[in-house]
Amino acid sequence: MNAIDKNIKFVNADAKVDEAATKPFAKSRKIYVQGSRPDIQVPFREISLSDTPSSFGGDTNPPVVVYDTSGPYTDPNVDIDIRNGLPALRATWIMERGDVEQLDGPTSAFGHQRLVDPELSQMRFNLHRKPLRAKAGQNVSQMHYARKGIITPEMEFIAIRENQRRENMSDLLQTQHPGHHFGASIPPVITPEFVRDEVARGRAIIPANINHPEVEPMIIGRNFLVKINANIGNSALGSSISEEVEKMVWGTRWGGDTVMDLSTGKNIHETREWIIRNSPVPIGTVPIYQALEKVNGKAEDLTWEIFRDTLIEQAEQGVDYFTIHAGVRLAYIPMTAKRMTGIVSRGGSIMAKWCLAHHQESFLYTHFEDICEIMKQYDVSFSLGDGLRPGSIYDANDEAQFAELKTLGELTQIAWKHDVQCMIEGPGHVPMHLIKENMDLQLAHCGEAPFYTLGPLTTDIAPGYDHITSGIGAAMIGWYGCAMLCYVTPKEHLGLPDKEDVRVGIITYKIAAHAADLAKGHPGAQIRDNALSKARFEFRWEDQFNLGLDPEKAKEFHDETLPQEGAKQA
Amino acid sequence: MNAIDKNIKFVNADAKVDEAATKPFAKSRKIYVQGSRPDIQVPFREISLSDTPSSFGGDTNPPVVVYDTSGPYTDPNVDIDIRNGLPALRATWIMERGDVEQLDGPTSAFGHQRLVDPELSQMRFNLHRKPLRAKAGQNVSQMHYARKGIITPEMEFIAIRENQRRENMSDLLQTQHPGHHFGASIPPVITPEFVRDEVARGRAIIPANINHPEVEPMIIGRNFLVKINANIGNSALGSSISEEVEKMVWGTRWGGDTVMDLSTGKNIHETREWIIRNSPVPIGTVPIYQALEKVNGKAEDLTWEIFRDTLIEQAEQGVDYFTIHAGVRLAYIPMTAKRMTGIVSRGGSIMAKWCLAHHQESFLYTHFEDICEIMKQYDVSFSLGDGLRPGSIYDANDEAQFAELKTLGELTQIAWKHDVQCMIEGPGHVPMHLIKENMDLQLAHCGEAPFYTLGPLTTDIAPGYDHITSGIGAAMIGWYGCAMLCYVTPKEHLGLPDKEDVRVGIITYKIAAHAADLAKGHPGAQIRDNALSKARFEFRWEDQFNLGLDPEKAKEFHDETLPQEGAKQA
Repeated sequence: MNAIDKNIKFVNADAKVDEAATKPFAKSRKIYVQGSRPDIQVPFREISLSDTPSSFGGDTNPPVVVYDTSGPYTDPNVDIDIRNGLPALRATWIMERGDVEQLDGPTSAFGHQRLVDPELSQMRFNLHRKPLRAKAGQNVSQMHYARKGIITPEMEFIAIRENQRRENMSDLLQTQHPGHHFGASIPPVITPEFVRDEVARGRAIIPANINHPEVEPMIIGRNFLVKINANIGNSALGSSISEEVEKMVWGTRWGGDTVMDLSTGKNIHETREWIIRNSPVPIGTVPIYQALEKVNGKAEDLTWEIFRDTLIEQAEQGVDYFTIHAGVRLAYIPMTAKRMTGIVSRGGSIMAKWCLAHHQESFLYTHFEDICEIMKQYDVSFSLGDGLRPGSIYDANDEAQFAELKTLGELTQIAWKHDVQCMIEGPGHVPMHLIKENMDLQLAHCGEAPFYTLGPLTTDIAPGYDHITSGIGAAMIGWYGCAMLCYVTPKEHLGLPDKEDVRVGIITYKIAAHAADLAKGHPGAQIRDNALSKARFEFRWEDQFNLGLDPEKAKEFHDETLPQEGAKQA
Repeated sequence: MNAIDKNIKFVNADAKVDEAATKPFAKSRKIYVQGSRPDIQVPFREISLSDTPSSFGGDTNPPVVVYDTSGPYTDPNVDIDIRNGLPALRATWIMERGDVEQLDGPTSAFGHQRLVDPELSQMRFNLHRKPLRAKAGQNVSQMHYARKGIITPEMEFIAIRENQRRENMSDLLQTQHPGHHFGASIPPVITPEFVRDEVARGRAIIPANINHPEVEPMIIGRNFLVKINANIGNSALGSSISEEVEKMVWGTRWGGDTVMDLSTGKNIHETREWIIRNSPVPIGTVPIYQALEKVNGKAEDLTWEIFRDTLIEQAEQGVDYFTIHAGVRLAYIPMTAKRMTGIVSRGGSIMAKWCLAHHQESFLYTHFEDICEIMKQYDVSFSLGDGLRPGSIYDANDEAQFAELKTLGELTQIAWKHDVQCMIEGPGHVPMHLIKENMDLQLAHCGEAPFYTLGPLTTDIAPGYDHITSGIGAAMIGWYGCAMLCYVTPKEHLGLPDKEDVRVGIITYKIAAHAADLAKGHPGAQIRDNALSKARFEFRWEDQFNLGLDPEKAKEFHDETLPQEGAKQA
């Protein structure tokens, strides 16, 4: 059954998500910590532990609280019906700021066209509310509020979330190695004021479109926990809308902090709507992909007007961050001629083709201030794309890559002038000893705006295992200061990931992010390691599984063979 | 069927290895490069490539030659019969040095006892030759020859092997990033004299017992390619002799440079014999495990005499290196009292128990010179065990660990006084920012003797994925100067690895070792990356698979889905 058939079958009346993606983890329960007002309810997962056997001292082991990206899906008290979407938890916060207006309907031509197409009625998400936009002259970005000195409920939510409720843990569990932070300045306790300050100075972003009130606020910045992104996305024949919603839910279950929807093909507008309405995490997209669909794949036919309409279309659906390859300047393209693998970024190659066909600077670069004007009306954050990233070890850290990075730094300053939140994408394929240069130059050129890298892959010789080649680089660059790591799955370079690949990719990147937090000396980062090691030493097998990133896999592996033997090996 | 039944069924008349473990890789052929004498035949795998499509320039792509650990198993011109074992390729080299004598039979009491036991006749390997030992007063270690200025055939073999025949590669493929070597001094070309010099100064070892003439010589040292070890080993109920032989063959197929046999239980003597006779790579063991079996698992009943007999027993079978936990001194044991996870090394905890029971220094420490006397009669290399390695992030880099490391440095000097080859084992569980201290202290305390580490695991929170938590640390410590990386499989802490776990563990560690070679700037290390990236860019899918570490997995993943889509993602 191909995707077109599947989507016809995806009548919204039947839509639901798989139980495997939503069932609670063993011995875990969802808890909420209330903030300064009753509607700030910050979710965590609390893992309860058994007592230490009397031969080891018979301790009572208090529960361990962990960061939880899975949203209401793992809360048995919440009825999930993906036809209704998630509760709009930020709706009041957004409205009470008094700076937004409700539109009559989508203002993009394409959004309108899709809304009125009767053929789409079976697959359309029935959103019973209208899109929001900043009132004329207003700026609704979190950065704008931060710079005015306002601590938003989103910022307070994040402060509570980042602290992971560690104040109740024992001294033993709180003991950790002092880290090596490479210039990060992480305070012992994250306060709402600290969150505000970091956002104000551009060192962190809160991707939270006013049209995505369902999102549970989170932050990306080097002085916070290292985050990870999971990519999903259908292809012409690859999967259906319901499969993509399911991948998103599945991805957040395993720990995806944000999800990028890289769908292509006919129904990406509708697919995106379903994903956003049901996503507790920020959603990112690469709008040029959809713009290219609108000109039937001919890059040279792209125009600013088509791109602009796409930005508005997606902003009004609630996309939280846009990858925009505005740093691919005409003069840099010849610098890629001597490369082994040319331009491998899809967005980068689309824009390079356009620049060469028209022999002029790309409209992303020339209209950058216009783009900022749109972003601030919805609070969409920039993820400035690295269109000239290296696609091989051979091409790492070359002239083209670093020329673009410098331009991304200039564009960051422009975004900040507009109080638009901004992070910077990074490579790619980089051998270990050249990774730090990427981080150092990014910090220097881009004024400490958050860095968001794909891997990097530290060798090219292991197709089928690129989650690992890249997990090594991701852990290292996270340690050096990268704020978010874009996962790579085992299918990288080979095909589209299935659910198991998504899970493996995410766990690999959770490992990388956590290893980075430990090495930076992030306060409290070692609690979970300590609790798990204590359980391991005391042969509390179930606790060891449940404290792990993937309790199901650990239990499955254990049950295949003998416990006592395995315990002695490392 | 339990292992006892299986071993009864393992009548040597039927023994064979699975075809999946021996079939040649697609488009690969075995080649041999001859040295200065016709019996130096150094094996490589040559991967032939297709031409570049004309749209990309129509290049002819010469074959790529890669290091090959798989021995004769992947040579279709060799008839494999594991009942006969592999050809004794070093036999002439050993005999012509004129310093060994052939014994009438095993000189260890245990070896003799097993040989004459009629009940074992069905499972005994029929070796039609007698064990060798140095003549009285002679020292047959490669280090001894090296220090006398002798370049052995083993050294020349290694020089050819390490250079990987890269002189024929194009300038494009030979182009690579200058590395960051942290004090390694790797010459542009490895000469036999360089090999000799490194062995003479103790900076590299050639594990090659005179009773393992089947081994294809290889070298472990920071100025050579980073190597990996794969552990195998049965357990009481886990597996049979034939399964262990098969795991060894399987492990070398995927790239294991050495194999440690950690078998326990009733028939380990016979299992080991079968493994060594069929192993093209050096075999390491932990003799204290077998000694413990001989006293029915009661550590306090161990004696120097039992241990000594075990060393001789195994040395006469051909074990190439012994892990010996001689650095666990009585005074260090109280230092582990405040640890989260105590003493996790099995050898370490056996010796700690002995020391506490007798309240004296262990016989491994007090008899260290006696052990050296045995090692040099067979050329068994030391792998000085880190019995006090940390078993958790919490315990990393503590007083106990570094006290032991300093003692290992003192023991290294004693081994070197006897011209006995020596490497040093390292941890364990270490967060990223504390890894380099391990390497730096090891180099300082142990006079640059090769370091051989397990991982290290960079976090404790991912049981089921410890190949990845540790692959990160392994890549980093390899870059810093570690000479050999002991693999960790996904089953670590949970159970015994099956064949698929062995494969995944090895590929993960090949990635780590290779990423380290790239970062060190090892000459020619980037050739395979360059060739694969070129194939990828030119959509030569089969070449991309075949140049990868695991061609079968890459092809399988690719064939599941659409090629063109996947190619664009990183």
